[in-house]
Amino acid sequence: MDLLSIKDPTFLKKCSNKDLENVAKDIRRFLIEKLSVTGGHLGPNLGVVELTLILHQLFESPKDKFLWDVGHQAYVHKILTGRADQFDQLRQYKGLCGFPKRSESEHDVWETGHSSTSLSAAMGMATARDLKGTDDNVVAIIGDGALTGGMALEALNHIGHEQKDLIVVLNDNEMSIAPNVGALHNVLGRMRTAGRYQKAKEDLEMLIKKIPAFGGRLAATAERVKDSLKYLLVSGMFFEELGFTYLGPVDGHDLDDLTTNMKYAKKTKGPVLVHVITKKGKGYAPAENDAKGTWHGLGPYKMESGEVVKKPGPPSYSGVFAETLKKVAHEDNRVVALTAAMPGGTKLDVFGKEFPDRMFDVGIAEQHATTMAAGLATQGMKPVFAVYSTFLQRGYDQVVHDVCRQNLNVVFAIDRAGLVGADGETHQGVFDISYLRHLPNMTILMPKDENELQHMVYTALKYDDGPIAVRYPRGNGFGIQMDETLKTLPIGKWEVMEEGSDLTILTFGTMIPIAIAAADQLSKEGIHVEVVNARSIKPLDGEMLNDLAVKNRPIITLEEGALQGGFGSAVLEYLHENNHHSVVVERLGIPDRFIEHGSVNQLLEEVGLTADETVRRVKQLLPKKRQRA
Amino acid sequence: MDLLSIKDPTFLKKCSNKDLENVAKDIRRFLIEKLSVTGGHLGPNLGVVELTLILHQLFESPKDKFLWDVGHQAYVHKILTGRADQFDQLRQYKGLCGFPKRSESEHDVWETGHSSTSLSAAMGMATARDLKGTDDNVVAIIGDGALTGGMALEALNHIGHEQKDLIVVLNDNEMSIAPNVGALHNVLGRMRTAGRYQKAKEDLEMLIKKIPAFGGRLAATAERVKDSLKYLLVSGMFFEELGFTYLGPVDGHDLDDLTTNMKYAKKTKGPVLVHVITKKGKGYAPAENDAKGTWHGLGPYKMESGEVVKKPGPPSYSGVFAETLKKVAHEDNRVVALTAAMPGGTKLDVFGKEFPDRMFDVGIAEQHATTMAAGLATQGMKPVFAVYSTFLQRGYDQVVHDVCRQNLNVVFAIDRAGLVGADGETHQGVFDISYLRHLPNMTILMPKDENELQHMVYTALKYDDGPIAVRYPRGNGFGIQMDETLKTLPIGKWEVMEEGSDLTILTFGTMIPIAIAAADQLSKEGIHVEVVNARSIKPLDGEMLNDLAVKNRPIITLEEGALQGGFGSAVLEYLHENNHHSVVVERLGIPDRFIEHGSVNQLLEEVGLTADETVRRVKQLLPKKRQRA
Repeated sequence: MDLLSIKDPTFLKKCSNKDLENVAKDIRRFLIEKLSVTGGHLGPNLGVVELTLILHQLFESPKDKFLWDVGHQAYVHKILTGRADQFDQLRQYKGLCGFPKRSESEHDVWETGHSSTSLSAAMGMATARDLKGTDDNVVAIIGDGALTGGMALEALNHIGHEQKDLIVVLNDNEMSIAPNVGALHNVLGRMRTAGRYQKAKEDLEMLIKKIPAFGGRLAATAERVKDSLKYLLVSGMFFEELGFTYLGPVDGHDLDDLTTNMKYAKKTKGPVLVHVITKKGKGYAPAENDAKGTWHGLGPYKMESGEVVKKPGPPSYSGVFAETLKKVAHEDNRVVALTAAMPGGTKLDVFGKEFPDRMFDVGIAEQHATTMAAGLATQGMKPVFAVYSTFLQRGYDQVVHDVCRQNLNVVFAIDRAGLVGADGETHQGVFDISYLRHLPNMTILMPKDENELQHMVYTALKYDDGPIAVRYPRGNGFGIQMDETLKTLPIGKWEVMEEGSDLTILTFGTMIPIAIAAADQLSKEGIHVEVVNARSIKPLDGEMLNDLAVKNRPIITLEEGALQGGFGSAVLEYLHENNHHSVVVERLGIPDRFIEHGSVNQLLEEVGLTADETVRRVKQLLPKKRQRA
Repeated sequence: MDLLSIKDPTFLKKCSNKDLENVAKDIRRFLIEKLSVTGGHLGPNLGVVELTLILHQLFESPKDKFLWDVGHQAYVHKILTGRADQFDQLRQYKGLCGFPKRSESEHDVWETGHSSTSLSAAMGMATARDLKGTDDNVVAIIGDGALTGGMALEALNHIGHEQKDLIVVLNDNEMSIAPNVGALHNVLGRMRTAGRYQKAKEDLEMLIKKIPAFGGRLAATAERVKDSLKYLLVSGMFFEELGFTYLGPVDGHDLDDLTTNMKYAKKTKGPVLVHVITKKGKGYAPAENDAKGTWHGLGPYKMESGEVVKKPGPPSYSGVFAETLKKVAHEDNRVVALTAAMPGGTKLDVFGKEFPDRMFDVGIAEQHATTMAAGLATQGMKPVFAVYSTFLQRGYDQVVHDVCRQNLNVVFAIDRAGLVGADGETHQGVFDISYLRHLPNMTILMPKDENELQHMVYTALKYDDGPIAVRYPRGNGFGIQMDETLKTLPIGKWEVMEEGSDLTILTFGTMIPIAIAAADQLSKEGIHVEVVNARSIKPLDGEMLNDLAVKNRPIITLEEGALQGGFGSAVLEYLHENNHHSVVVERLGIPDRFIEHGSVNQLLEEVGLTADETVRRVKQLLPKKRQRA
């Protein structure tokens, strides 16, 4: 069918399973084709085509509510709710968001991006429904990876206790992004192979209903038999223990099986968990046979061959980090590494290949990872938790309470710091300076290039005076010459990149090239701007700040991070604390709003973090200085 | 015995159970007596006397490591490790900490205060041990309440998967602080009543070992019989599903039972969970018969009668909050309340009594509570999450990603904001302004007194433009007249409390009386200080700040919160953003270090948040202003 003609999912009501099969084929072809150009989360979406069709056929969205956990598997849902025509702009600036987005459609009732939030939100929605006395269904679709996130388990516990009417669809593809981790994963594995438990249970319940005349004692006996049979049939009754009715395992690509179980779930009272087995990448051979998670989310590829289009380029920051870690780990056996389900993204897989016993993938569990690192540090180890800036938000309390408060030698390798681009507002790494800077004992560094990164990682590993964070951006370095010998960098010392006496730009990381470009432009006009690599974000370089203040030279701080409580604020705090009250300071950075998806350059343009804008601000500022002088 | 003579726990090795019983009696008498004067966590410690004795008898602390989850139950451990003589100063300034503290003793290997961290830390320590090739035991002691915290479940999942050698002692007293919540609690309940599962399992294992000659097939059959029997015997095999060996239930006050099971746990390979049933308050009738959680942690009491010494006083801030919520809930049925296991502390129990269907205690699960509130808000409800400042740290990512990013109308009632006193550094509520202020869409208010609090709660409930936080301190109000009619306060508007033209103090909440006292003192010397109630912390009152800047009047910001990224920084940011670069601003607040326990006044004195210090700073500042003028 013409997917572009779909306005809403009501047409599915009249579809036979044969029709649905054809729609499924069309959707797969559409996704494979469109994403080959735009990139996106192909694997997860190919896995949920049939599931999404059946959900939209049996339920009435938006009255009934679908909550897509993590949300990168909502493309099929977007197609069925009238957004097929926007896929050419998928994940592009002002285009279709890669995650559910309430402003896009009334069918997107809950926005996601980070994992494991759907069950808590579903509990909130179902509770609101019951208080208002309406009868809508609430369905959370969550992957087996996301289920191991602590908040999902908190929610399961509460939902089971309250016996709230809602449906959890466990989309079990035996993967999160990387192959799955944890004991819960093994439980799911046993369920998968345990055969048709549900059928047997239904038979028994039928039997019990047929003998009510015998009354109490026999019914109780039958109930006990049912229980023992249950345990004989299925060795993993995890969810029933928590108070859920467990349905499954269901073949997530079998429309009949899905229909039967979803219908049953819909009419069952109390919380239901439908365990659906799907295949990530289903229907596209390259994605189906993907052991490394390449096809989870990716850029453009050649549709026919499945060849991923690789832009040749300098090494990524993540790669340089991992290689440096390896190098140091060879000579220092205290070094161990942790990741929360991101071995590929953080490049710790490279480290793990060489040091399998010293690398820990704990699953989607940033809280546990942070505190486990703290535990390791109490025993004299040198744990390095490599984590995206946006995901470390999950471990904030553990960073405060367990790491900083005990002043433990934990290294945070904060990847994807700054704007991340296509993943958009749920993933921008723009808050970490603000949420870490106010923590006592914390040190925060950011390198200007990949060569400085390797020295900084080395510095962090040699540092023995508490927690230290090295933050670096998504993407590639500059391809510059890498020093052969690692060295420690002085903490609390900045570096002058360009001399200049009219004004000083204090900046770091990704903003340094922008500052230099601005300085070059300005020098042509006879304005001489000093550019400083303020690589030590906490502590600041007090000596240099005092010097600047004495010169009463205007300062611009330039950062790819939230202005509120960020680096620029730290500079203001320092100056006023040291009685330099009259220094002119202008702070450039990310304003006080969430930044949507787009290319990093488009987003930088949007928020004014460009050389041109910096030039404009310098000129605006300078007359003031001259007036003073 | 003379508990003061104990230097370390080695004396326990030679003790018979009869001896231990006597020591237990002495410890109970000691705790009941000492805490009647100092106050403290009596209930939890009376519950773990025998458990702690057996642990210290069978293991070798500090080589073997005990991790006390939450840590308020470590008093017995402190007595046995030579700190009995310090109990007169328990939880007092420079005295014995109420939680494990590494600087106090080598036997305190892990510091706690927040719940649910012990399993992750134990995993870290056990991993370090295995990498180093030593053979120490790692034992985490965690309550059934703390077990429902998401990070504990993340850790269970990972430990089970890794089959790491460590012991989890589940101290199951059927309470957290309040009676326990959640499906997991029901699982534990079933285990408790399931009889002697462990014994049966051991018999079977013995049997299996006796028939190795029969080889594969018979062994497999026997194994299956064992499994089915297991399920018949115990209906809650939650922990075994996760890969733990489950031992119990054990009577936590029966020394023989404890010894047998702990010995077995010690020699068992892989992760073991010992399920110990204890009675909170054991051995002291008033604490044993405590349904309301009064004896969990409390101030002084009369030892003989068990009468709690109550200081008569004005209503508490928590109480005023809850009463106001009730009032509004009567006329607005969108209002619902959430707590994470703190119904008593937040006074939401008062609300829940009147609105049982609109009050949700989700257990120790701040992440879930925050996102459930977000889910409620998407459906037009008015959820109010009442939570201590320090515990909301656990929900930081959920506040960012689910609440602020979706701009949902969630009200955060942030209790215990500021210094909390005796609970010390793990509980000080000094970071919330810094961790909330940088979040887009967030509004933050703090009242000057209990009357303003009721209007602020009302204002927050009427506010329909996104998340809003009302923060208020621990303790009582001033006993001032309460307005009968609730009114909304303008957001982003401050209030001049005292006129003055020499200098302006911008302050809020608890610091207002200090500012006024300073102003009074200064006025006697002819210095006229304006005192402003800056009750809107975000947004600021830009109009007033512009006025002040135009007057070029020196400003002091005074806050009971972290200086880094706090209110004072917000003022600096605003002034510089609006080209008021030369205003003299001095920020007074909590310096960049963790603040230990003591009375709030002692701690304020320590950090210089007093009228005298404010006077000194004003005088220091003023000449500068005069030089300028």
